[in-house]
Amino acid sequence: MEIKVVKDILGANEQIAQKNRQLFDSNHVLAVNLMSSPGAGKTSLILETIKRLKGKTRVGVVEGDISSSLDAEAIGKEGVPVVQINTGGECHLDANMTSTALGSVPLKDVDLLLIENVGNLVCPAEFALGEHKKILISSTPEGDDKPFKYPLMFHEADVVLINKIDLLPYLKFNTDAFSRAIKGINQKVEIFPISCTTGEGIEKWVSWLLTQMSRRQS
Amino acid sequence: MEIKVVKDILGANEQIAQKNRQLFDSNHVLAVNLMSSPGAGKTSLILETIKRLKGKTRVGVVEGDISSSLDAEAIGKEGVPVVQINTGGECHLDANMTSTALGSVPLKDVDLLLIENVGNLVCPAEFALGEHKKILISSTPEGDDKPFKYPLMFHEADVVLINKIDLLPYLKFNTDAFSRAIKGINQKVEIFPISCTTGEGIEKWVSWLLTQMSRRQS
Repeated sequence: MEIKVVKDILGANEQIAQKNRQLFDSNHVLAVNLMSSPGAGKTSLILETIKRLKGKTRVGVVEGDISSSLDAEAIGKEGVPVVQINTGGECHLDANMTSTALGSVPLKDVDLLLIENVGNLVCPAEFALGEHKKILISSTPEGDDKPFKYPLMFHEADVVLINKIDLLPYLKFNTDAFSRAIKGINQKVEIFPISCTTGEGIEKWVSWLLTQMSRRQS
Repeated sequence: MEIKVVKDILGANEQIAQKNRQLFDSNHVLAVNLMSSPGAGKTSLILETIKRLKGKTRVGVVEGDISSSLDAEAIGKEGVPVVQINTGGECHLDANMTSTALGSVPLKDVDLLLIENVGNLVCPAEFALGEHKKILISSTPEGDDKPFKYPLMFHEADVVLINKIDLLPYLKFNTDAFSRAIKGINQKVEIFPISCTTGEGIEKWVSWLLTQMSRRQS
């Protein structure tokens, strides 16, 4: 019975996700779904990405949080359109919440939509939002065993950003072992080590985004 | 409709949690539910706690994970009874999973039961397991804004352990502001800064545990 309810929810979610995808495509918007543990650096990555894309592409942001609008306020200061979703306790965004938020995003004036999911390594992996790419930010202080413990999230990701590499000298974190563990779960994934604090690696991530956008437009 | 389903689930969970609590009490076991984001240090804390309590009290562990038994294997090496729960995708432990696991825990030979929940700052806060105390481990690299973003978890906690204080020199983390934010949500909470890497603060946490146990036995 419980399984049937879950199937119904995921089926309904998938239908709305497809409508969101059509809306992105008809507006020539690349939509990416940013997922991570709490505090792994989703908002910092969005801020760094916006700064580097200024004058190159038009960015919009959807901010998902259980409560508070702290992140949306920080992003709004960068002068890009940002819409806050407060899930009211739900531990993930879903396609319907995203659809509602899209009503407030000026999609005709956006080339790249960054959707920040709720900080959680479990449930967000199960709910498509209509995004073109799923991005997982995994930060070094969380430890290099996370692919074994949250395999679905690592399996679903198109890109894994290893964030906070500036802290590596102070941690027991084996980047090679971590990357091998990810590739064991997900052969197609691309992995970029980054630091939102020092800026290291961010250019490669931004280049990847620009490549995805040019591929979609050609 | 959805709300009713959720209420039914929580109601059923509460009944089983009460039975678990009776089982703990009849065996004179103090049960604590350890919750945190992924990689905040639950397993490290359990290992440090076991080492310091050797010869003082008999510890047992229930290990909750979505998949893998890495943590249970590490804890088993310390020579304490440990039972693994694999939730098979569920993002939290519940009272029923705990009840099933308790069938394999030698409660008569245990004074303190440490229950490690799934790494998640959202859903575990909603599901009582029958525990006497809820412990939240919040690590400094996650940032000092977490109480605003995951308020239910901070509201439910009896103790917040601020872990990874050895990394403070390399982070923007205001311990005073963090503590004030927690107290704003939860006046009764006790807060201990700790480092499982250097051992700083662990003795105070262990003293707190011993005090709770002696209060229950007197």
